[in-house]
Amino acid sequence: MKKILALFLIAAFLISVPVTFADEGMWTFDNPPLRQWKERYNFEPTSGWLENVRLASVRLNDGGSGGFVSPDGLLVTNQHVAAGQLQKLSTKENDLTKNGFYARTRAEELKAPDLEINVLVSYENVTERVQLAVKPGASDKEASEQRKAVIAQIEKDSTEKTDLKSDVVSFYSGGEYWLYRHKKYTDIRIVFAAEEQIAFFGGDYDNFTFPRYDLDVTFLRAYENNQPARTPNYFKWSATGPADGEFVLASGSPGSTARLLTVAQLAYQRDVGNPLQKKVWTSRLDALESYARRGSEQARQAGSGTRSLNNSLKRLTGQQDGLMMPRMFGRKEAEEKALKDELAKKPDLQKIYAPGWEQISAAYAQLPAMANRLAFSNLATSRLGDIASKLVRYAEEIRKPNDQRYDEFRDSKLESFKFSLLSPAPIYSELEEVSLTAWLEEALKTLGANDPFVKAALGGSTPAETVRRAVQGTQLKDVAARKALLEDGADAIAKSADPMIVLARNVEPIVRELRAWNEEKILNVEASAGQKIAKARFAVYGKSIAPDANFNLRLSYGKVSGYEEDTTLVPFKTTFFGLYDRAMSFGEKPPYNLPARYKEGRSKLDLSTPLNFVYSADTIGGNSGSPVINRNAELVGLNFDSNIQKLSNRYWYIEEEEGSRAVAVHSAGILEALRKLYEADGLVKELTGK
Amino acid sequence: MKKILALFLIAAFLISVPVTFADEGMWTFDNPPLRQWKERYNFEPTSGWLENVRLASVRLNDGGSGGFVSPDGLLVTNQHVAAGQLQKLSTKENDLTKNGFYARTRAEELKAPDLEINVLVSYENVTERVQLAVKPGASDKEASEQRKAVIAQIEKDSTEKTDLKSDVVSFYSGGEYWLYRHKKYTDIRIVFAAEEQIAFFGGDYDNFTFPRYDLDVTFLRAYENNQPARTPNYFKWSATGPADGEFVLASGSPGSTARLLTVAQLAYQRDVGNPLQKKVWTSRLDALESYARRGSEQARQAGSGTRSLNNSLKRLTGQQDGLMMPRMFGRKEAEEKALKDELAKKPDLQKIYAPGWEQISAAYAQLPAMANRLAFSNLATSRLGDIASKLVRYAEEIRKPNDQRYDEFRDSKLESFKFSLLSPAPIYSELEEVSLTAWLEEALKTLGANDPFVKAALGGSTPAETVRRAVQGTQLKDVAARKALLEDGADAIAKSADPMIVLARNVEPIVRELRAWNEEKILNVEASAGQKIAKARFAVYGKSIAPDANFNLRLSYGKVSGYEEDTTLVPFKTTFFGLYDRAMSFGEKPPYNLPARYKEGRSKLDLSTPLNFVYSADTIGGNSGSPVINRNAELVGLNFDSNIQKLSNRYWYIEEEEGSRAVAVHSAGILEALRKLYEADGLVKELTGK
Repeated sequence: MKKILALFLIAAFLISVPVTFADEGMWTFDNPPLRQWKERYNFEPTSGWLENVRLASVRLNDGGSGGFVSPDGLLVTNQHVAAGQLQKLSTKENDLTKNGFYARTRAEELKAPDLEINVLVSYENVTERVQLAVKPGASDKEASEQRKAVIAQIEKDSTEKTDLKSDVVSFYSGGEYWLYRHKKYTDIRIVFAAEEQIAFFGGDYDNFTFPRYDLDVTFLRAYENNQPARTPNYFKWSATGPADGEFVLASGSPGSTARLLTVAQLAYQRDVGNPLQKKVWTSRLDALESYARRGSEQARQAGSGTRSLNNSLKRLTGQQDGLMMPRMFGRKEAEEKALKDELAKKPDLQKIYAPGWEQISAAYAQLPAMANRLAFSNLATSRLGDIASKLVRYAEEIRKPNDQRYDEFRDSKLESFKFSLLSPAPIYSELEEVSLTAWLEEALKTLGANDPFVKAALGGSTPAETVRRAVQGTQLKDVAARKALLEDGADAIAKSADPMIVLARNVEPIVRELRAWNEEKILNVEASAGQKIAKARFAVYGKSIAPDANFNLRLSYGKVSGYEEDTTLVPFKTTFFGLYDRAMSFGEKPPYNLPARYKEGRSKLDLSTPLNFVYSADTIGGNSGSPVINRNAELVGLNFDSNIQKLSNRYWYIEEEEGSRAVAVHSAGILEALRKLYEADGLVKELTGK
Repeated sequence: MKKILALFLIAAFLISVPVTFADEGMWTFDNPPLRQWKERYNFEPTSGWLENVRLASVRLNDGGSGGFVSPDGLLVTNQHVAAGQLQKLSTKENDLTKNGFYARTRAEELKAPDLEINVLVSYENVTERVQLAVKPGASDKEASEQRKAVIAQIEKDSTEKTDLKSDVVSFYSGGEYWLYRHKKYTDIRIVFAAEEQIAFFGGDYDNFTFPRYDLDVTFLRAYENNQPARTPNYFKWSATGPADGEFVLASGSPGSTARLLTVAQLAYQRDVGNPLQKKVWTSRLDALESYARRGSEQARQAGSGTRSLNNSLKRLTGQQDGLMMPRMFGRKEAEEKALKDELAKKPDLQKIYAPGWEQISAAYAQLPAMANRLAFSNLATSRLGDIASKLVRYAEEIRKPNDQRYDEFRDSKLESFKFSLLSPAPIYSELEEVSLTAWLEEALKTLGANDPFVKAALGGSTPAETVRRAVQGTQLKDVAARKALLEDGADAIAKSADPMIVLARNVEPIVRELRAWNEEKILNVEASAGQKIAKARFAVYGKSIAPDANFNLRLSYGKVSGYEEDTTLVPFKTTFFGLYDRAMSFGEKPPYNLPARYKEGRSKLDLSTPLNFVYSADTIGGNSGSPVINRNAELVGLNFDSNIQKLSNRYWYIEEEEGSRAVAVHSAGILEALRKLYEADGLVKELTGK
């Protein structure tokens, strides 16, 4: 650490470099940190190495990452990433979340109801084309429309040419635009899932901690034309896993970071955004938990939602704790000041770019007054409300020319939109009613009875009555009914008397009005001002900083290593011994109870086999399920968590020396459990050839 | 916690009570917290219960506690408490510290070279007699002499009457004086010692942490007349140990707390005393560590000293960290202010007692300038230097009347003094030379070449030359030589040409001068002013606060319970599973390596057997080896450590709710290891009857 700082101080006299730390950054494949890899780890990948890793990595549209691990479409991710699909496949009689699952033959593999996965096949820098489409002198609104139009065109051309899912993605707050082309798989089947109690051993308590002892693993298989997909690019499974101190990389799709935000944007997060988000999630969690208390079947239905919200809230709390620390917030102020000071040395650029910061500040000054309305004016908290709203919105958007539609209704996105909308996953009316009622009650409480959204939604009725009518009368639970509506087209939707659609139609003008306000006052300003700041940053630092994460494929890297905590050492790995210690130490009380298989099969295990390990790579939510690979692109672990030291890394990289670590399931531990406890010989053979 | 605070707030309107918390206090047997026990734990011991526990508890003069566990003098304590004796019995060829020890027959039990243990047989309040001996109008110095005289008389009378070791002990900074009579055992033999690597698994890193996995256990046996002592008061061994949440007590001899010090005294500790202590210990540790690096035999010789200094430094760091926290220091200021405010409501008492605080402040104002001289002007860092100094001092003191001698040379203390001085424990010349040289070099550096002690010690020579001459020429390594000198009497010592005695004689006038300064300027003032403050405290709060710990027998209490740390739970116990997890997780690298017996015998163990546990009692250094007992006075554990949350509790009680815990070896874990790994059937039978 001291050495690194010293090097930095020397470097600071030579060129302007921002303070970037050793293992910082979630890097795009077009700009990997080759210098850092070479200097710190003597790692110099070929372009073939990078291509293979990219094509073996997958993004799951449920929000998570994974990787192919055989040439026959077999892929691995976390149990918690696949938990939504497992829940949708479960019934009261057969709870796959609780009991786990293993298909001994391909015929037994279970089709996931609405899981799409994407592989990044190619990418292309279209920054110039997008930025040049904006006419000189355009207002923010005009600039936005001009950008939208050219982006729609680029996506359309690409889709027609390649038949790949083609998206123009913004990086560096609009400093760069890239066309990303993904190969899409929508026939995904479940091969293996660990029991939730071992995938999430220790529950919410042990989430974001280390040492921990979780087998957070699911194997899936991608199919094409009802046959296992051919996936020649895959990660070989390492039977031994990583050595202490070994260089590793995580290849995955981190969700979002906010490290390049301005101080004004961060202050908004701290003072308004995060507290409001906490309120929204807490309200939803309370509703789910009260529903779960009605009985075991209700608890099962609410399970993955509860787990996901608890996870989000714990992470949010950690992020907010970080923002609240003056020392940490001060670091962002210092970074912004340093960039502005450097910019001031280039007066011609300063004149163009420096106003970016003030424009964002001015825009954000208007946001607190609108924040509650923006947060609560929707029905998306319930699946039926969400489906109805999407149908209503679709009906209106689809009439417009492609380049004038909301982003999510552009031609290039329609296929994925329909796949998700027509999911056969079960919808539980009782749960829908509880969730949506609680949501409208919270909206009523927060926004007041005279709020336009509240008035439009309730029309003088109570939330309970409104929701009961809509849920009990709707046909949208039925996939065929949704399909028929879509096929009948926009007019049919616009005229439908389905009470959930009526509810969605009633509130839609308010939703649109707020969306327009947000686009005009905030998003368009952010886009143009953000681009100025990005250009300022490029002018001063070049591309030595990675762009903020945005659910697209990135490479993170670091080394497998333990750390100091308080006065003692945390080892880099845990073993099965520790799993049993923690279970027994708590007298096997939940959440420290063990699945029957683990209690009964203990003597079959080599308990010294590693189970989890930590490493120093820069990861965040969305990296769940990322293959952790060594320099030979062998899979040595499966990322599934971060420790608490890392929890505020949405806003900044937290140095390895502060004990910040990503947590992975160890590849040897997975094999040991598959072999000895699950007797999953077919799966083991596919992974190891043995 | 909220409930307790609420109760306190109600109580505060009724009477003046200080803020004492649930499980606070190291209580003397004359004033056990019966009300708290009854209210919180429904525990109402009989006087017979208390007497039995007192007579079954022992103090080890090496600094530690223990308890009888059979009627035949068998007693249990920590391996680290007995480590000094084990080291003294070890040789290059047979290292008992490293290899452990078990005597299969009584004939094999090994006599400890210089271990004395004490049992508190009776006690008597002599406050009035001591305080009335001080004549009205006496100066601090006169008061001190008058107190000394009466104390010497009381001790002498008691010794003559009872033949028991009789000491007048001060409590509450002289607010009370008690005559404590101890039965003394000096023939103590080693029955069993665990290998240091399992007694201190995790080494200094895991010291003061939890979860941990240590079998810090030694069994000893007290002998009288070459026969096992009859000890009808003993703790029955619990084969099951404590349940989660169970009420337990620790009976032991906590070393020292400083909770009733004034703010001026604490500020001195924070600003001068602790940093200086750290310097002294670090200097000694550095010398030992550099010596240990010379080879494995040297490392063995330095072992217990190194371990003990590391332990002291880690604790001191924790204490100082606490004092440095404004919030914690502020608590002491608030306590002092509250007491002064209450006192102000009794103007007659205020007039007499309130000056106590200013007198102590005035005295302490003189201390910083003298602190370095007081700390460094002695030879006690080496055993030979210490022996020589004690002989020289003895020769001078023994000529005086009993009541005018230094405390440690009063008749009542002479037997223990000689037992220690004539210990047959080996003395390693090379180690002596290194330690004493490093010490004098540090003294020279700190005090300067013109300091009186430095000049007297070195006489113009270098530390290395001075020490080499003294160590190489001295006969004091030989017990017989020491014995002969003692028997030849004061004149012989005063005239001895032994170069170590000459060195001690050279510095003795300086040592005495500083001791006189310290007595006159600090200790005598503290005694009289401290007594005023104690009386003020009694007048306001009664005896609802326990006196500061002073190496005498106390009862602490609390409940066995885990706690929250960061966002997760720490269980109340660990198991053998966890021991193997931690060893394997670190690849068995030291200090996480396992003794051969543990590696090879793993399959014999029931790994789910509890190994260590935590409980909320108020303990501190000196409580090491305290029996942890349940309400039936059965031994359920053996105290050996505290966790890091508790580390600053020298100055204040740290609430259970903050995760502060004492750490014990579990009685079931000890049995499991004795049975399965050590095959110590005889010992197990003596403990359990089976």
